[in-house]
Amino acid sequence: MYFTVSKKDFYNGLSVVARAISNYSPLPAFSGIKIEANTDELILTGSDSDISIQTVIRNQDDCKLSIKDNGAIVIEARYILEIVRKTESDEIEFEIIDNALTKISGNGAEFKINGMKATDYPAIDFSKPKEVFSFEGHLLKQIIAQTAFATSDKETRPVLTGVNFHAAAGKLNCVGTDSYRLAKKELKIDSALSFNITIPAKSLAEVSKIVEDEDLVEIAVNDKKAQFMINSTIIQTRLIDGAYPETERLIPTSYEYELSMNAHDLLGAIDRASFIKNDGVSVIKLSLDEKECILSTKALEVGSSTEVLAGAIFKGEHLEISCNGRYVFDAIRALEGESVIFKFCGEMKPFIIKAAGDDDVLQLVLPVRTYA
Amino acid sequence: MYFTVSKKDFYNGLSVVARAISNYSPLPAFSGIKIEANTDELILTGSDSDISIQTVIRNQDDCKLSIKDNGAIVIEARYILEIVRKTESDEIEFEIIDNALTKISGNGAEFKINGMKATDYPAIDFSKPKEVFSFEGHLLKQIIAQTAFATSDKETRPVLTGVNFHAAAGKLNCVGTDSYRLAKKELKIDSALSFNITIPAKSLAEVSKIVEDEDLVEIAVNDKKAQFMINSTIIQTRLIDGAYPETERLIPTSYEYELSMNAHDLLGAIDRASFIKNDGVSVIKLSLDEKECILSTKALEVGSSTEVLAGAIFKGEHLEISCNGRYVFDAIRALEGESVIFKFCGEMKPFIIKAAGDDDVLQLVLPVRTYA
Repeated sequence: MYFTVSKKDFYNGLSVVARAISNYSPLPAFSGIKIEANTDELILTGSDSDISIQTVIRNQDDCKLSIKDNGAIVIEARYILEIVRKTESDEIEFEIIDNALTKISGNGAEFKINGMKATDYPAIDFSKPKEVFSFEGHLLKQIIAQTAFATSDKETRPVLTGVNFHAAAGKLNCVGTDSYRLAKKELKIDSALSFNITIPAKSLAEVSKIVEDEDLVEIAVNDKKAQFMINSTIIQTRLIDGAYPETERLIPTSYEYELSMNAHDLLGAIDRASFIKNDGVSVIKLSLDEKECILSTKALEVGSSTEVLAGAIFKGEHLEISCNGRYVFDAIRALEGESVIFKFCGEMKPFIIKAAGDDDVLQLVLPVRTYA
Repeated sequence: MYFTVSKKDFYNGLSVVARAISNYSPLPAFSGIKIEANTDELILTGSDSDISIQTVIRNQDDCKLSIKDNGAIVIEARYILEIVRKTESDEIEFEIIDNALTKISGNGAEFKINGMKATDYPAIDFSKPKEVFSFEGHLLKQIIAQTAFATSDKETRPVLTGVNFHAAAGKLNCVGTDSYRLAKKELKIDSALSFNITIPAKSLAEVSKIVEDEDLVEIAVNDKKAQFMINSTIIQTRLIDGAYPETERLIPTSYEYELSMNAHDLLGAIDRASFIKNDGVSVIKLSLDEKECILSTKALEVGSSTEVLAGAIFKGEHLEISCNGRYVFDAIRALEGESVIFKFCGEMKPFIIKAAGDDDVLQLVLPVRTYA
C-alpha cells in the first residue's frame, strides 16, 4: 500500500469519518480509521458499530491523489488525525513498510506508526436501503434541531432516545419525546414512501454536524438502518428496535386559553430566573390573566423571582400553571419563530407551543404540580 | 441598605472580585461577594482566604451610583452574577428588605435572594505593605507568563508552587521551578527595595487575567503578603512560607555546544511529535551535529518519528540529548523570541534556552535518560 494525497482533503475526510468513532468502543479496531487504497479511490471508514461513516477521496478538482500500490490498514484515529493536521505540507505520503507498520510523511517529518491489520476490522455493510428520499441540508438540520432535543437521555425506555420518523400517505411525521415533553414536525413527502423507524438522537446529532446547509442529502431507509448520503460521504446508523408509542392522542385538540408573546423576550425572562432551582430543576409558574401575565419562581434556599411579561397577550379565564422552565426554553428556541403561541386546556393538562404562522412544528410540555 | 448603580460597572466589579472565589471554600461566607454601600462608595470584596480582591465603585464618568441607605450584605457570587448579567436594564436597584433578604431589580424583573449577614464575613486586612514599586501591565503579565508555567503543581514541596521574587542591590530576580525545569527573569529595580518572597502561581494567574496591558500596576509587598493595585481594584495574596531553594548555582556558567534555530519551526516539530508518549510523557531526542540536527521520538506501542530540523545551526561535537518535549515547548513559547539558542554542557547535564538578543530571560531544562 502506497499513496500520496493532498493534505487538506485527506484531513477533511479523516475528520468526517472520525466523528463515528467512540472513545469507549469495546472493539480495539473501532478506535481506528480504516484506510483503503483501491486503484483510483481512497476509502476512509470510521465506526462504533451504532454509527458508521465512509467517505471516498478521488483525484479530482483541487484534490491530488496518486495510488501506487493498493492495500488497506487501520490506524488509531487520534494518531493519524494529529499527524495529518500538524504536518506542514500540501501533500502526505502514506506507505505500509512492514506488516502493519505504516510510514506517514510530509515536509521532512516522518512518522512510523503501528497500525492494525485491515482484516481485523469488522465488515460493515454499506448497501443502500430501498426507501429513498432527499432533503436540503438546512431542512434536515432544522428537523433534527426541532425534535432531537426532546428525546430522552435515559436508557430505561430505549425507543425514547431516538427520533421517530413515520412516513405514510404523503406525510412524514418526526417526533421526539422523553415522556415529559414532546416535539413534532410534520412534512410533505412522496406518497409512495412508507416506513416507521426510530433513529438514535446521537446519530442525528452527528449527521447535523457533518451536513452543510447547502448540501442535498439523500436519505435511504429500511427497517434495519438509515443512510444519509452527502457528496462522497455515507453516514449510516442502526435504528432503535421496539414500537414507538402512539403520540398523536397525547396532543389536545381543543384549548381554552391562549398566550402569545415575543419569543426572545420570553426566553430572556425564563433564562433570568433559571438559576432559582429546586433539586436542580427550575420550575417556573405562569400566572396568566387578560390584564397581566407574570412569570415567577421560588426555591426555599435561594429566594424567588417575579417578572411581568411585557407584551404578553392572554385570552381566557385566570390561569396558573407551573412547568419545567428548561423544557419551555428548549421548546421556544426550537420553534425558531419571532412570536410564540401557547395553548392551554387547564392547570394540570399538557399544553402546546407553536410559532406564529408555522403549523408544521408543535411543542408539547407537561405541567408540574407545585406546593407554593 | 439601598442603592442604584449602573449595570455595566456593577457587573464588571462583581466579575473581578468573583475571580478570588473558589468553589471549594470551606467557609460558606467565602462563596459570596461582600457588598458594602458606604455614603459615596460601593465596596465589593471576594476572597478564598489565599487571594482576596476588593474593588470600589464610585459615581464618576459613565458610572451612576446613588446610595440612599448605607449597609452591607453578602450574596452568593453565582446568583448575583447571574442576575446582574441577565438583567436587561442599564440600572440595577439593590435593597435589603428584611434581615438578609435582598431585593435586586431592573426592567420589570425582580429577585428576592437570601443573603448572608456581612458580620459573618471574615475581616480581611487590606492595609498596604511597605515595599512599593510599579510595573506596566504588559511587563507584569510577561514576567508571570515567562516564569509561572515552570512552577510545580504538586504540594509535596509547597514553596515550588510559587514564583520567587528576590529584590536586592537594584535587581529583581523572578524564578519558577518544579525541580525538573527552571524559568528565570531578571529586571532592574529601585536599589532601595529589598525582599525575598514567593507568591503562589495560582494568585499570579488571577492577577494576569485581571491586569490589562496598558494598566499601571502598583505592587506592595512585605513578608506576609503581596498587593497588586490597578485603578480602584486591590488584589491581595498570601505568600508561601519557607525558604526558596538557591537556584543560581544550578545554572551552568560554561557551555560546550550551542544550537540556534527559528522558534516557530522548532515548536512545530516538537508539537508534531508530541502524541508519541511513554507513560503520558513525550520524550524527544535531539541528535545534534554540525551537518544535521534531528528530532526524534519513540514509544513502543505507538511508533516513532524523525524530523530533520531545517535551518538549525549547531556548534560543537556530536551530541545526543533527550528531554521532556513539553518542557522544551513551554520554555520556547515563554521566551517569546523569533529565534532561540540552546546551550549544552553534556548529555546528562542541565541545558539552557534563551531568546536571541534577550539576556533577561533564561529557561533551564534537565535532560532525561532514555534506553533506546
